[in-house]
Amino acid sequence: MHDWSKGAAIIRGEIVPIAEARIGVTDWGMTRSDITYDVAPVLEGAFFRLPDYLARFAASRAALRLSIPEDDAAIRATLHAIVARAGLRNAYVAMVASRGAPAVPGSRDPRDCVNHFYAWCVPYLRVISAEVEARGARIWIARQTHRIPEDSINPRVKNYHWGDFTQALFEAYDHGADTAVLTDHAGNIAEGPGFNVFCVSGGRLITPRGHCLEGITRQTVLDAAAEAGVAAEVRDIPLAEFLDADEVFTATTAGGPVPVVRVDDRILGNGAPGPVSEMLRERYWQMTRRAALRDPVVYA
Amino acid sequence: MHDWSKGAAIIRGEIVPIAEARIGVTDWGMTRSDITYDVAPVLEGAFFRLPDYLARFAASRAALRLSIPEDDAAIRATLHAIVARAGLRNAYVAMVASRGAPAVPGSRDPRDCVNHFYAWCVPYLRVISAEVEARGARIWIARQTHRIPEDSINPRVKNYHWGDFTQALFEAYDHGADTAVLTDHAGNIAEGPGFNVFCVSGGRLITPRGHCLEGITRQTVLDAAAEAGVAAEVRDIPLAEFLDADEVFTATTAGGPVPVVRVDDRILGNGAPGPVSEMLRERYWQMTRRAALRDPVVYA
Ligand SMILES: Cc1ncc(COP(=O)(O)O)c(C=O)c1O
Ligand SMILES: Cc1ncc(COP(=O)(O)O)c(C=O)c1O
Repeated sequence: MHDWSKGAAIIRGEIVPIAEARIGVTDWGMTRSDITYDVAPVLEGAFFRLPDYLARFAASRAALRLSIPEDDAAIRATLHAIVARAGLRNAYVAMVASRGAPAVPGSRDPRDCVNHFYAWCVPYLRVISAEVEARGARIWIARQTHRIPEDSINPRVKNYHWGDFTQALFEAYDHGADTAVLTDHAGNIAEGPGFNVFCVSGGRLITPRGHCLEGITRQTVLDAAAEAGVAAEVRDIPLAEFLDADEVFTATTAGGPVPVVRVDDRILGNGAPGPVSEMLRERYWQMTRRAALRDPVVYA
Repeated sequence: MHDWSKGAAIIRGEIVPIAEARIGVTDWGMTRSDITYDVAPVLEGAFFRLPDYLARFAASRAALRLSIPEDDAAIRATLHAIVARAGLRNAYVAMVASRGAPAVPGSRDPRDCVNHFYAWCVPYLRVISAEVEARGARIWIARQTHRIPEDSINPRVKNYHWGDFTQALFEAYDHGADTAVLTDHAGNIAEGPGFNVFCVSGGRLITPRGHCLEGITRQTVLDAAAEAGVAAEVRDIPLAEFLDADEVFTATTAGGPVPVVRVDDRILGNGAPGPVSEMLRERYWQMTRRAALRDPVVYA
């Protein structure tokens, strides 16, 4: 008996329950993390901004010289199919392109590999839990570990190179925080394990320019700020400036914007979410309901 | 009909043919590359220096706070079992410890995960093919991509964060080379995709100190050099010094030491392997035959 409501996947062309979706241990997606992915949300029965996620996924594949047989239309159809099969009205939907394995046995040349696509969905996930969101998140700026630099791994290509995030998370937990934010090697704020960051200083909204994924949620927040008439800047944020901000929040597909009430040992806004963050969070969730940005799933 | 001679694996406690060894697509070993591994060789029917590989694997697990039920004796027994099952007299044997998936659904906390061990073996692999080894390898020093720094990912913990290597490989191929060598962000030689590097200058053997795995093959080469009375240094090698070396060679479990005859567009030793490299390569393969360093596999 399969519990499809836990999620579904398509792999090697077959739709299977999530627990049975597996990839070969010698696939270079595993042994070299030679793989890219993207994650789109299904919110109340519809994909949100799916074309933007598909475009980013295509750009990531091109950057890694990964080539899969499926085009955007086929990927979209597949994503709809697995969400419908699982019957999930709120879902975290991953699309993945992997290098695969060499067609020539023993080859160590990525150009000899048969690249492949798979996808999976599970019930909507939150990078920061709903309980933590309700009280506001406590973040720790990692000091031992820095974000992998752009000339080692391109952070705009969504990737599974999460070792720096994992080490930073342990450091954050050791300091009683909920999650971590990393700086680049020049000491500017980068991002955290699965989210972009924003700060608000003197009424202006600021988010890092580099050393981070160009998040779709970050873009939606910037769009919301523009509509609300809040001035926004995309630029380097030195750590000292960030520590001095009036408000801080995180932003990700997996949970939307989440207010931060503590950075390191410093409490922000008397421990309550800030007004600009709250206004933008509200606008964000309103935007997710706009028909023009939604692609409804047809459930059986 | 399974072709066991292509390799065998043990995963979820079961021995299976390599083609059936698969890991869940939501395992954090995959989605966060939150995993460590090691690779020991079986050469002419025996493991070589297995205790050293087991020790490095244990140190890597500790560094990542990964905890598996198996101890070294159990891991050793498992590795022997899969090699015997596959009947391989020369094998590339991988042992892997993965973060797994959270026991608490929806958790994003690595401490909630059930870590697990698996292992697999395939016929002996060469990072640089035997044909290229015979004529000497042509390497390209990557200029676009630098080795991931130590304060982002610890290179002494054997890991699958290979994105920098893959980009460097493409750059090397674009320049007609066989493989790539990366430098760190300070411009010192680091390592290549799956191997350490050595150079010989004025009769002295030199290998990088940091930004690389502490390879077992590198250690065997250093041991061979000590026995041969060749002075050796483990220290930073600035790119300019490396480009000026008399000889260069690579070193890895997957192929042993391999002479390099071209670095970028510069031809070394008139295009023939250098004398110190050749002497050490010969001594290396002699050492692999020493009974004290071998752990024979009992085949059925
Ligand atoms: C490293 C990283 N940064 C930022 C984000 C946020 O991007 P998006 O809003 O597109 O989900 C993610 C998404 O999961 C991420 O993995
Ligand atoms: C990145 C890297 N460097 C160096 C090496 C060489 O180490 P060893 O001689 O222990 O195989 C490897 C091994 O495969 C490797 O993956």
